[in-house]
Amino acid sequence: MAKAHNFFAGPAVLPKPVLEAAAKAVTNYKDLGMGVVEISHRSKDFVEIHDQAVADMKELMGLGDDHHVLFLSGGASTQFALVPMNFLHNSADFIDTGRWSIKAIDEAQMFGNVNVPFSGKDNGYSAFPTKFEFDEDADYVHVTSNNTVAGTQMKVFPETNAPLVCDMSSDMLSRELNFSDFGFIYAGAQKNMGPAGVTVVIIRNDLLEKQKSGLPTMMRYSTHVKKASAYNTPPVYGVFMVGQVLKWIKDQGGVKAVEKVNEEKAGMLYDVLDKYELFKPHAHKDVRSTMNVTWRMSTEELESEFLALASEHNMYGLKGHRSVGGLRASIYNACPVESVKALCELLEDFGSKNS
Amino acid sequence: MAKAHNFFAGPAVLPKPVLEAAAKAVTNYKDLGMGVVEISHRSKDFVEIHDQAVADMKELMGLGDDHHVLFLSGGASTQFALVPMNFLHNSADFIDTGRWSIKAIDEAQMFGNVNVPFSGKDNGYSAFPTKFEFDEDADYVHVTSNNTVAGTQMKVFPETNAPLVCDMSSDMLSRELNFSDFGFIYAGAQKNMGPAGVTVVIIRNDLLEKQKSGLPTMMRYSTHVKKASAYNTPPVYGVFMVGQVLKWIKDQGGVKAVEKVNEEKAGMLYDVLDKYELFKPHAHKDVRSTMNVTWRMSTEELESEFLALASEHNMYGLKGHRSVGGLRASIYNACPVESVKALCELLEDFGSKNS
Repeated sequence: MAKAHNFFAGPAVLPKPVLEAAAKAVTNYKDLGMGVVEISHRSKDFVEIHDQAVADMKELMGLGDDHHVLFLSGGASTQFALVPMNFLHNSADFIDTGRWSIKAIDEAQMFGNVNVPFSGKDNGYSAFPTKFEFDEDADYVHVTSNNTVAGTQMKVFPETNAPLVCDMSSDMLSRELNFSDFGFIYAGAQKNMGPAGVTVVIIRNDLLEKQKSGLPTMMRYSTHVKKASAYNTPPVYGVFMVGQVLKWIKDQGGVKAVEKVNEEKAGMLYDVLDKYELFKPHAHKDVRSTMNVTWRMSTEELESEFLALASEHNMYGLKGHRSVGGLRASIYNACPVESVKALCELLEDFGSKNS
Repeated sequence: MAKAHNFFAGPAVLPKPVLEAAAKAVTNYKDLGMGVVEISHRSKDFVEIHDQAVADMKELMGLGDDHHVLFLSGGASTQFALVPMNFLHNSADFIDTGRWSIKAIDEAQMFGNVNVPFSGKDNGYSAFPTKFEFDEDADYVHVTSNNTVAGTQMKVFPETNAPLVCDMSSDMLSRELNFSDFGFIYAGAQKNMGPAGVTVVIIRNDLLEKQKSGLPTMMRYSTHVKKASAYNTPPVYGVFMVGQVLKWIKDQGGVKAVEKVNEEKAGMLYDVLDKYELFKPHAHKDVRSTMNVTWRMSTEELESEFLALASEHNMYGLKGHRSVGGLRASIYNACPVESVKALCELLEDFGSKNS
């Protein structure tokens, strides 16, 4: 069976060497006669897997001792609530760039005042500025780095006095950033970093020190920092796979090398989308995502026709998010250039035939 | 490489056919040209996996429409807090049978009054009665069905007016019970049901209706009931593996058949432990666990000597929990009879030599 062209928004395509290592490890890890799913989280073998993943993550992100890397679970949706539970003492600023920002705002409002210096609602979340007016007294500023639904990406992060908190679920490790500038980063692993079931959290000491008291044990970040993500049983197999993805990124030449390929892939796609009137890319050029490319066609019939055609060509996951319709190609780190080329050819063909 | 004898307390040994199916599915699921880790949680392929797992779980447990089966994450430790957040309006009764009960009590105390009709603290958690005096007005009664650390197991569950809530992490699906008698059951999957990273929750409608208001979205059980565990991205691969384990249990002849083997395995072990003065089984005979067999030896030196010997015989995970010391053999559903036999032979040999 040929590898399918996988454009799912997440869970999404993973690198072939990662899947091969995972398949091998699941039945017999390191010739222990046990699979990596069968070993204790207190065993030296798992501690090694965990520590290596933390070290590789820090290396790839250029983080020092001030930052802690946690492997939790519950997805970014759980973080929408945990961040304000831990750090929202009075008020926080949220930049609203779409669906995931709104969800983060909704949860935060249960715990304190939320100011929204900017919302993209009026422009259908197709654009946003680079500068915002923040509240002087905000406990933190929250941004979503990439919006999978609208296909937008924050290219320049705001300078803030308050710690910058970022939902980086859909573009973490896809491009070089000054990661140490962030007070808090969270991301579901299932787009660029591994399987669903692992949530990566990066937390800086200055924010950790401001954690509110009286929280349940599992809902305090300090619990997980103190116990290196093993206060209770972590998702062992998921952490193993994230570790394999990090190794793969290093093998590609690191984040900078991966970013270059991501720009090439996205560039190819936007080029063909810009070429034909038939295609209507959703995001403003300034904020086009290199991870999720979203567009409409001139009619819904043509959209359906293209989706059926793509399916015949072994292409999966091109339907736009149910909340907006249209089409979307998610082209994360692990999406092969060949898949993007195949999609571009199909679009080119479809564009020229229907123009 | 020979299969090791895996006595880890969890993550623990999984059935060989499950690991083989998992290894195959991780690179190419159902000849889709995509691994099961790479498919969307909204795809029909995952919805099928999920729905089948729910149906099989209900069939194995004899549950009807009154009960909902959820696949969440965060482990039982997260449930220690979520249960009282959702259902502790005024007060609840907790039977304290050891380490995990205490943790559940500690979290519940943040949300309301906790009564403890019985604590095994004074007998070192080696025994407990079958009848308790409950508070008439309790919102619920909480019990731990099996204590992995002490090696005790609740053989008879108390009759209660209030809904019975049970942490069944370490013996779920290991024996026949009237599962529908429980208002709420929770269990980390990594002992009898799959890999770490999936938490199984069974919730009955009458309790669900009493859910407190004002909770964050991800912390409400109703969210997950309404969305069939897919409000956000569930741990796709973990749910797939749990599904494979359920299929395996059905292939064994169901819970009753698995229980018979579990009793045989535990019987063999307790027989040899009772045979020699050298061995001091921890649990009172009435409450001996069929899942976690715990014992001391007459000296710590002999314990270390035996652990070294077991390691030479390719046996893993026999060291007692760090909080109590001694030895422990975790012999969950998937632990092969051959592994228990091998351990019994080694104990027999060690017992006769050192008596």
